[in-house]
Amino acid sequence: MKIHILVASLMIAGTSLAIASGGEPIQPIQAAKVTNPALVELGKKLYFDPRLSKSGFISCNSCHNLSMGGTDNIPTSIGDKWQQGPINAPTVLNSSLNVAQFWDGRAADLQAQAGGPIANPGEMGFSHTLAVGVLQSIPGYVAEFKKAFGSEQVDIEKVTKAIAAFEETLVTPNSRFDKYLKGNKKAITKDELAGYQLFKDSGCVACHNGPAVGGNSFQKMGVVAAYSANSPAEGRSAVTGKDADRFNFKVPTLRNVEMTYPYFHDGAANTLAEAVNTMARIQLGKTFTAEENAKVVAFLKTLTGDQPNFKLPILPPSSDSTPRPTPFEKK
Amino acid sequence: MKIHILVASLMIAGTSLAIASGGEPIQPIQAAKVTNPALVELGKKLYFDPRLSKSGFISCNSCHNLSMGGTDNIPTSIGDKWQQGPINAPTVLNSSLNVAQFWDGRAADLQAQAGGPIANPGEMGFSHTLAVGVLQSIPGYVAEFKKAFGSEQVDIEKVTKAIAAFEETLVTPNSRFDKYLKGNKKAITKDELAGYQLFKDSGCVACHNGPAVGGNSFQKMGVVAAYSANSPAEGRSAVTGKDADRFNFKVPTLRNVEMTYPYFHDGAANTLAEAVNTMARIQLGKTFTAEENAKVVAFLKTLTGDQPNFKLPILPPSSDSTPRPTPFEKK
Repeated sequence: MKIHILVASLMIAGTSLAIASGGEPIQPIQAAKVTNPALVELGKKLYFDPRLSKSGFISCNSCHNLSMGGTDNIPTSIGDKWQQGPINAPTVLNSSLNVAQFWDGRAADLQAQAGGPIANPGEMGFSHTLAVGVLQSIPGYVAEFKKAFGSEQVDIEKVTKAIAAFEETLVTPNSRFDKYLKGNKKAITKDELAGYQLFKDSGCVACHNGPAVGGNSFQKMGVVAAYSANSPAEGRSAVTGKDADRFNFKVPTLRNVEMTYPYFHDGAANTLAEAVNTMARIQLGKTFTAEENAKVVAFLKTLTGDQPNFKLPILPPSSDSTPRPTPFEKK
Repeated sequence: MKIHILVASLMIAGTSLAIASGGEPIQPIQAAKVTNPALVELGKKLYFDPRLSKSGFISCNSCHNLSMGGTDNIPTSIGDKWQQGPINAPTVLNSSLNVAQFWDGRAADLQAQAGGPIANPGEMGFSHTLAVGVLQSIPGYVAEFKKAFGSEQVDIEKVTKAIAAFEETLVTPNSRFDKYLKGNKKAITKDELAGYQLFKDSGCVACHNGPAVGGNSFQKMGVVAAYSANSPAEGRSAVTGKDADRFNFKVPTLRNVEMTYPYFHDGAANTLAEAVNTMARIQLGKTFTAEENAKVVAFLKTLTGDQPNFKLPILPPSSDSTPRPTPFEKK
């Protein structure tokens, strides 16, 4: 009876998966369940559509490129008129598992996030009103909004809801490590397993845990030693206003980390080897030997799962009344 | 016997298709035949890979976007550091049917074209040597070059050959108009058919003919009345050095023309209605009524065929030794 209650409490506390995975701090990624296919299809098109930007050149996929681990693989992103972004574009893959969105968690969920870059003058440089106006003028989109929402009326709530619904499908199950967790002990090599053991024993799992191996908490960048960032970003304090939250950033997921270089919120670490050593030094006060570092890196590379698997979307053409992009307009 | 010789001569002269289609000036698009799938798959990845640019941000697909009719749908393209291009990006769809590549035909074929933008300082801003160095450092690519070419050695010849092989697959058969040409008389409406009749009777077919409804000759922009272009491009004379070739441009294909706005080499015409009226006026000395214009436009919209139909490629990640992009480097 006592055990039964204990298990029930643990499940309520959200650690049921830990039990299911034999107490491991990392749990397998679950495949996404699509409940509204029309909404997801619409969201996919919107995700790839550069007409949501002022220039007609930048889409969600420009900086969260699904051919490249859901990132742009450059330290900070390129925005409207080639403006340099202040922070590294986090991967969209498995982002539905994040505790909140953006490095500082200023968006509660994917829908709240999706509207940000569209209207950010340094990113897509557009406005919600203008983006909605463009979509409303495109008959192919109007038909899809009707199908997904039962109404031909486009608004930013629907636009961001559709994008979020698509993004929720971007999980990456079936990594070799997940196969290992599910019982296939041959799915990873001896060195990779040794790397996982080091990852646990060294304390990396204190922050990088759960199905996304991160993404579920905010932590200070530089716990043991200070981190000198290439970015002006101050992290969580920008949201909470609390000085104690300075340099607290959302812990990034390590899923597909082999593909999401460069690393850290300022994109300063070009390689996994460098990122692992920096993290060990500034977060754990630890120095890995070259051999240990290689094993941890080998383990991290087992976290690459099934990448997005869908046909390139074909976007509905603009109509004669669709406002045209203004990529070279002087302010 | 005489008839037999005549038919044989006509076939030699390349007009056999005209006979096969009942003498129509436009012939159906044929589906592509893939002889080397590994080469096409490699080319598809390269086509989508922004690491062929200095910034790591611009790929072939940035300006010849296969979600948008193989174009970027802006008057002139955005290049490295947001440079404004001098000319409208022509569609890559059905470009294998072109007599030559670029508006001025300065590249003999798709392979010769593919190397141009990579090394153009105003486009991808890279160099062939640097692009090859990046690819050679990526194990996933090296394996694919080995599979496609039998050797792990990457060079620009192989890179452009693979991109061209992929581009050759980008034909768009099965448009409603092709179905009509093949005998399904219900595939187009009465108005669309009337538009086709106008298109033939007015002389549009003098230049816009063949399977691509264009793409097979160079013609002067402004035969009857001068065209005042928004572009400094002088056309074919830049290649031949002959003054007689000034403002001669490759006739663009009208396949998928509903998707390839804006129109003309300077991208000055936003709508098909405007493009049709301008062409009639400056090329044919003709003025369409609003009703005639609408019929021609309706016909042109029947030329949209099967769009690219493949899965979004997943690109092999860079290795620790891969040179990193330099999007914000000062010259």
